[in-house]
Amino acid sequence: MPEAVPHAGSWRRRRATLLLDRPPWLRVFADDVELPDGREVEGFLRIESREYATVFAVTPQGHVLFLRQYKYGPDRVALQLPAGYLEPGETPDQGARRELLEETGYTASEWVYLGGYRPDGNRGFGMAHLFLAQGARAVQAPDAGDLEEATIRILSLEQAEAALTSGEMAELAPIACVALALARLRAPRPALPAQGAAPGTA
Amino acid sequence: MPEAVPHAGSWRRRRATLLLDRPPWLRVFADDVELPDGREVEGFLRIESREYATVFAVTPQGHVLFLRQYKYGPDRVALQLPAGYLEPGETPDQGARRELLEETGYTASEWVYLGGYRPDGNRGFGMAHLFLAQGARAVQAPDAGDLEEATIRILSLEQAEAALTSGEMAELAPIACVALALARLRAPRPALPAQGAAPGTA
Repeated sequence: MPEAVPHAGSWRRRRATLLLDRPPWLRVFADDVELPDGREVEGFLRIESREYATVFAVTPQGHVLFLRQYKYGPDRVALQLPAGYLEPGETPDQGARRELLEETGYTASEWVYLGGYRPDGNRGFGMAHLFLAQGARAVQAPDAGDLEEATIRILSLEQAEAALTSGEMAELAPIACVALALARLRAPRPALPAQGAAPGTA
Repeated sequence: MPEAVPHAGSWRRRRATLLLDRPPWLRVFADDVELPDGREVEGFLRIESREYATVFAVTPQGHVLFLRQYKYGPDRVALQLPAGYLEPGETPDQGARRELLEETGYTASEWVYLGGYRPDGNRGFGMAHLFLAQGARAVQAPDAGDLEEATIRILSLEQAEAALTSGEMAELAPIACVALALARLRAPRPALPAQGAAPGTA
């Protein structure tokens, strides 16, 4: 007997009550929602927070740009990737390029979008846009203008992989970004097109 | 000339103003903080949210337990790992074992703590405790009692690695947990002690 399809439906938002509004940082809502089975849930908390970009930037020599920086969330100094909130009107790609330049003084020639992921499965809490930037090169001095001063740390790809499990990183987003970037860098190149493929696709 | 130590100091919280209190889920504060250089920042937002455990559980046959489940944060069906909030008084380890059993009906014989990580570098937002559980085996039917119905999906280790970059996962925590668990499983075993090591350490 085929099972029912329990995961087909989204929750339907019937009503959103704004509980807290702190522009431009976050808004907290209590949502009344209807579940796919018809049940109703009142006051499920949802948080709108600013979306941000996180960048794994690697030079042609295989050097990866990290920051060593105090952050208030973990309340400790930890290894970070260049990252920051998107400015109003900015695309994730634009924000990623700007943050990389501001925080490290580097630009990069090849950008791969690794995806947008929710920092929280229940509340949402903005979106982390993760990027792999290859062909990175220094073009100016860093000038982040952040509240937290940061020291740039250059790691090899092997050291970047080791940093995943060393306890030096304190947040989910840079760990996810390092993991996805390394997986992408390791992925085999697309196969060459078969003989007789259309011109221009080779 | 040695550089000043820009990342030595933590921010000092001078005052915390409670903006929103929704027990047992979250509390939002506006903190007045003093930076290491003496500057003062007013109203930096901090969120206390419930800590949770996420589990990468693998059987002796190399089968990994995933869930396919709708979540309100990403507002879509995605591939998850067994996970859930810690109950009051529960340690991360206890919460991880309980959630694995409730959501999959499995227990595991070997547990490795992969670390606690902040979902947000600025706001904090609770703590994600990530685990690798080996020797997993089914002992009962799942009974999660969650609002979201879930379907258990069994993946090979290779499929779990492929899921990292397939776009099937929608949240940071399960991506970080898969990456750290796979790195741990791949890590070479500690070297055997040198000849003449103290008895009992081999």
